[in-house]
Order: sequence, then C-alpha cells, then structure tokens
Amino acid sequence: MLVVQKYGGTSVGSLDRIKAVAEKIASTYKEGNRVVAVVSAMAGETDKLIGLANQLSQNPDEREMDLLLSSGERISAALTAIAIRQVGLKAMSFTGRQVGIITDEVHTRAKIERITAERVKKAVEEGVIPVIAGFQGITEKSDVTTLGRGGSDLTAVAVAAALNADICEIYTDVEGIYTTDPNIVPEARKLEKISYDEMLELASLGAKVLQTRSVEFAKKYNVPVVVRSSFSDNPGTLVMKEDKEMEKVVVSGVAYDKNQAKITVIGVHDKPGIAAKLFNSIAEANIIVDMIVQNVSSDGKSTDISFTVPKVDSKKTLNITKGIVTELGAKSVNLREDIAKVSIVGVGMRTHSGVAAKMFETLARQGINILMISTSEIKVSCVIDAKYTELAVRVLHDAFELGEK
Amino acid sequence: MLVVQKYGGTSVGSLDRIKAVAEKIASTYKEGNRVVAVVSAMAGETDKLIGLANQLSQNPDEREMDLLLSSGERISAALTAIAIRQVGLKAMSFTGRQVGIITDEVHTRAKIERITAERVKKAVEEGVIPVIAGFQGITEKSDVTTLGRGGSDLTAVAVAAALNADICEIYTDVEGIYTTDPNIVPEARKLEKISYDEMLELASLGAKVLQTRSVEFAKKYNVPVVVRSSFSDNPGTLVMKEDKEMEKVVVSGVAYDKNQAKITVIGVHDKPGIAAKLFNSIAEANIIVDMIVQNVSSDGKSTDISFTVPKVDSKKTLNITKGIVTELGAKSVNLREDIAKVSIVGVGMRTHSGVAAKMFETLARQGINILMISTSEIKVSCVIDAKYTELAVRVLHDAFELGEK
Repeated sequence: MLVVQKYGGTSVGSLDRIKAVAEKIASTYKEGNRVVAVVSAMAGETDKLIGLANQLSQNPDEREMDLLLSSGERISAALTAIAIRQVGLKAMSFTGRQVGIITDEVHTRAKIERITAERVKKAVEEGVIPVIAGFQGITEKSDVTTLGRGGSDLTAVAVAAALNADICEIYTDVEGIYTTDPNIVPEARKLEKISYDEMLELASLGAKVLQTRSVEFAKKYNVPVVVRSSFSDNPGTLVMKEDKEMEKVVVSGVAYDKNQAKITVIGVHDKPGIAAKLFNSIAEANIIVDMIVQNVSSDGKSTDISFTVPKVDSKKTLNITKGIVTELGAKSVNLREDIAKVSIVGVGMRTHSGVAAKMFETLARQGINILMISTSEIKVSCVIDAKYTELAVRVLHDAFELGEK
Repeated sequence: MLVVQKYGGTSVGSLDRIKAVAEKIASTYKEGNRVVAVVSAMAGETDKLIGLANQLSQNPDEREMDLLLSSGERISAALTAIAIRQVGLKAMSFTGRQVGIITDEVHTRAKIERITAERVKKAVEEGVIPVIAGFQGITEKSDVTTLGRGGSDLTAVAVAAALNADICEIYTDVEGIYTTDPNIVPEARKLEKISYDEMLELASLGAKVLQTRSVEFAKKYNVPVVVRSSFSDNPGTLVMKEDKEMEKVVVSGVAYDKNQAKITVIGVHDKPGIAAKLFNSIAEANIIVDMIVQNVSSDGKSTDISFTVPKVDSKKTLNITKGIVTELGAKSVNLREDIAKVSIVGVGMRTHSGVAAKMFETLARQGINILMISTSEIKVSCVIDAKYTELAVRVLHDAFELGEK
C-alpha cells in the first residue's frame, strides 16, 4: 500500500512527539507499505509567529505573512526527517515548492491549481520516506503561499491524489468523527465511515476535524481519507465515497454552530431585485452569508428577509444593511447574536421521508422555538435560541438513535 | 546611491530592534538613496534550531539542517518587511531562491555559483525596498542550501555585486575594524579604511567581523564594503581596493589566534614525497593545516616538520600522524596545544624592509620565544607560548605605533 500520513501540530508538538511520529512512520513502513508524511508546524508555533507580526503591524502584508508562517512547517519537516533517519530509515524533507504545489496568488488562503509531486514520486520509488512541509504552496512566479487554517490536511489529500495513494491518514488529537460533540453528549459514537458529502456538511457546521477544502478535494479525486488519533492505535473514521450501506442510515450526525448571528430586515418591498441588492452589498464586503429565509408576503407589498452571517462580521453587516435600508424600502433592521444553528446530517435523507418533521417535533416537545429553517438534500438546519443548543443536540442525538447501543 | 545594508542577528534580535532597523532603512531611503536590505536570523534563533536537531540526532543530515536553519532568516526577512511597510514605505521580502542565488550542492557551507537578482532589480526600480533573507541559496535542483556561519555577509556582498551597488554596508555590534582587539589594547584605534587583502589576513587570523568568503567575493567584484555599528551613526571602516595612501602605512593591525595547536614530527626521512604523504593524509580527513615549517636537515638524512591545525582537530590529526609515523620514517610525534599565533598585517610591507626583524626584536625584548614563523607578502606570523599572547599583542601594537595619537 502507498500511505500518506498527515500529522497535525499537537502530533509534532515537541521533540518527544516528533520521535513518536518517526516510530509510527517507521512501523508502517516496516509492515511493507510505502509511506509519505505531511507535517504541520509544531503546536503553538504558528500563533507565536502571528503574534510577532501583529506586534509590528495591526494589518501585516499577506505575502509577508505567508513567508513568515510557512517557516513553521519547514522546521517540523526537517526535524521529522532527521528523526526518521535516526531510526535507521531513509527520509528526506520537501517544501511546498519542491513538491510542486502550484497555487493561485491569493495569499494566506491560496487555492491549489496543480500539483506535480515528481520529486516525491521519485523518492518513494527509491525507498525514501518523503516528509512534506504542509500548509504551503508556491505561485507561478515563485512567491510562497499558504493554504489557510488547516491547510496541511489539504496538502496531504492533494499529495495522496497526485500519487494515487491507497489511503490518506489524518492523524490528529481525536479518535475520529463522532455522531456529535462528545462534550455535550457523552454517548456520542465514533463513526466507522462517513461519506464525503456528510463530512462536508459536518465540517462546515463546526465539526472542525478536517479542513472543508481538503474534503472537497478528496471527493473530487476520490481519495479515501481516514481520521484517527496519533496517540492510539484505534482505527478512526473512514471518509469515502457514498455506498449502499450508508443510505440505510438516515441521520449520521448532529452538528451545531454558535458562531452565527441573525439579521432580519423588516418590511422590505416585495419586488424583483431587492434581495439581489441586499446580498450584493454584503458580498462586496467579503462577508459570507450562510442561511437566508424570506417570508411569504402577507399583503403582496412587503416582506421580511432574515439571514445569518459569522458573528465576527455581524456589526459590519448590520451597518451595511442599515446603509441601504431606504433603498430596500424597509422599515427596520435588527440583529440577534444569541442564536445557534443545530443541524442533522445524513445521506439516508435522500431516500427517507419525514426526517425534517421528526426534527421539528423533537425540538417542539422541549419547547424550543425554531427561528429559521434551511434544508439541503442531506441536511436540515434550524436556528434556535442559543441557550437551548446543548439541549437540542442531546434530544436530536437521542431521537435519531445515534448513541452507543 | 544604491546601498545594500546587511543587518546581523543582534541588529534584528528583538521586535524593538527590528523597528529600529526599519527606521534606519527608511531614513537612508528618504535621503534619496535606493536601499536593499539583507537580514540574518534573530540572535539566538539559529542556535535554538541547531539545539533541536542535535537533541534528535548527534549527526543530523546536512540537507535537513539547511532547510531547518534557513527558516530563521526567512522569519526575520518577513518581519523586517512588515516593519518597513509599517513606517509607510514599500517593502517586499525575498528568499535566497527568489533572489536567484544558485549554489553548489555542498550543504551547510555551499558556494555561490551565480546570482541573477532579477526580481530584486525590478523591485528596486519600482521604488520597493527588497528585504533579503541572508545566509541561504538554492541548488540547480531546488534544494535549499546555506552559506556557512556568517553567510549573510556573503549574501549582502553578492547582491551588491549583482546590482552594481555603490556601497555594501555591514551593520554589526562593533564600530568597525580595529588595529587590534580593544579588549587587550584599550588604545586600539578604529581604522578609517583597509584593503581587501589586509582584511582577509585579519579575518582569517581571528578578527571575526566579516566572513572571509564575503571579503574574497568583495575583492573579486570590487564591491566597497563598510563595517559599522547598527547602534550608532559613526562612519565605521571602509574595506576597499588598495590605494596609494594605504601603502604608506607599514602595519595596519595586529591579530592573534588562540585556536591553533602545533604538531611536530621529529626525525622524518629527508627525501622527496614525505611531506606530500603526511599532508595528503591530513587533507583527506578534511582538516585545514595553517602554518607548515620544515627545519633544515642537519645530517642530510632526517629533519623535523612542524605544522598547526585548528585545536578542535588536534587529537584527530595526532592520531592520523601517529598512524603513518613508520611510513614517514619518523622517530616521534608531539602535540602542543598551549600556543598562540600573533600576526602583523599591512600592505605597506611590500615596499618597506625590516618589518619582520622589528617584530622579532620586539618579542625578544620581552623574553618571548618564537616557536614558528610564517610570512606572506603582507603578513608576518609568529607562533608563541599562549601565555604571552596579550603581552605580545600589546608590545607589537605599541612598537608599530598603531594606537590613538
């Protein structure tokens, strides 16, 4: 098997942990596999560098930030390669450039345009264990870029795709993907497997184990990804293409997100172009709108529009919206920050009816009022009062029988 | 003027010092100059990284060490660029690769093969202040290399040569080049200027202000170099092509070196090929021999050979020499470590006689015995008992009237 193993910041957080990672890589290699490692910066290192830059400037140049932050992964790649050589195997570090990860020029959150991995392929053929500095790429004109928070996951998946690896293992500090947050529901169960689409819904909803873009990339190139703990030998969760078996499970997990705020525009003119005007103004400020709900017009003349944005952008969004309130013909705008989004996710919803109704009923039975509803093929999300978040997660987890049997 | 300014580790040793460097660069720029900065890693950073590697392996791979250590300069280049932008000027960091510093493949002490500096030239033309990560280059196949201790000096001189800069300023923690070590002779005088050749003799003799290879590079491309303090506005010392005025000064400085050890091989066969055999064996072990003295054969059959090597290599050299002692036909080998080399340097020696005699006489008057003598066109070196080092330096400094007037 050709195995790509990605080790996150806590997995390489100290010299002792780097030695443990080297042992883990060596034992996989000695079992007869070919191994490619991808490493993040040592835990805390990236935040330390960001801290230094912020002491110099409140708004440091993004190209400079990329050069600065990419150093952390280079350091851990070199140290990990040294540690692997120390246990008697051949190892060699590779930077984003040496791997041939070519990105666009959007610094601090660059997108991979292509990946050659020629030198990595050659190294693997020669029995060498390549140790790749994650999180980084390079533009056509040789500027260093970084792939955004969690970007090392994307490096690992992209390398696995380029090498046509059998599996991409993401080693992290949790045992895998759970049916919900075990801190809220102790009976939460580790999933054996989950489809790419379900993982995408869960990740974007706040289950931050795998970077969303790495899941999209894995889906596109059909790379099987395993999320597992670097501190145990447990099997973890396999993220893979949807299969027949998965369809039998109606709901795979319950997610929640407390980082959204809700803005409601009351008494908007009910005519074409109004919603476009509003959301164009918000998009121009680079604010990402998540849910949008427009109520049915009761009088045929005006209606209400509600939407959610990340809490950090809520004040800015409120100001933008207030600025165009007369243009929209609206009466008023209000902001609510004490809300949460609770979602159920599962590919089985496609073939099972009554799932949403069961969710609403379960919440209603606890007296939890639903402020907004949004659905996709494999997800139902409800915005509720923030104080009911934990209660809602628990009762939904129970209602859909997700706990340990 | 086009000015290349190099800032060493102590000059960028903290965020406050980086801010001070940014101010210095900005004021040079605002005086109407174009400025290119070259920075070292923040003081202590390189040693910290070496420490990490050594905890993993006693003999870490040199290619990995280069990737590891080059990170330090990348971090300070990014931070310095951010600091310069913060004072309102345009700045942009460049790595060794982005500068186009192509080296050979000898990791940890690579030699520059060529330098293009295309992007740096373009940046300068556009009014941008390039901030270059010192100490590093890249091989033809894109592996990161480093240029050895003090390699950022070489980066600065090479960039100055490539850009045809008017001056290369090396900012450090001393005020310039002195006639001798001011810690030994308080009257030591800062030199206004010194020739490349004199500087080479002084540098290789232990006056470690400028990396030797950077001086050779500066000489080859005739780059005027100024060594000055980053903590004052004093003019420093200009290292430049020899001129008429310099020839009038017989001795420019007195240097000393306590890091050599002396090995004597007694009773060697006095026939061709013996010296070659001895020094080939030592060279094969990558040990650099400094002085070599062979006494005149008294009986026509055997002679003694003395030579000096760096103290760190003395035991190894002794073993190698002992291993071939019968081949050499020698009677015995002995090692002395309690020695020092004291030298006088000056281009004026070429046109003045009696300089060496005056040195020997000065030492003799103090009862200092000379163990070995070696001379070049612009230098006379004597090996003496280590305990007389300071005394010898003081009396020579005085005899050649080098102190403040």
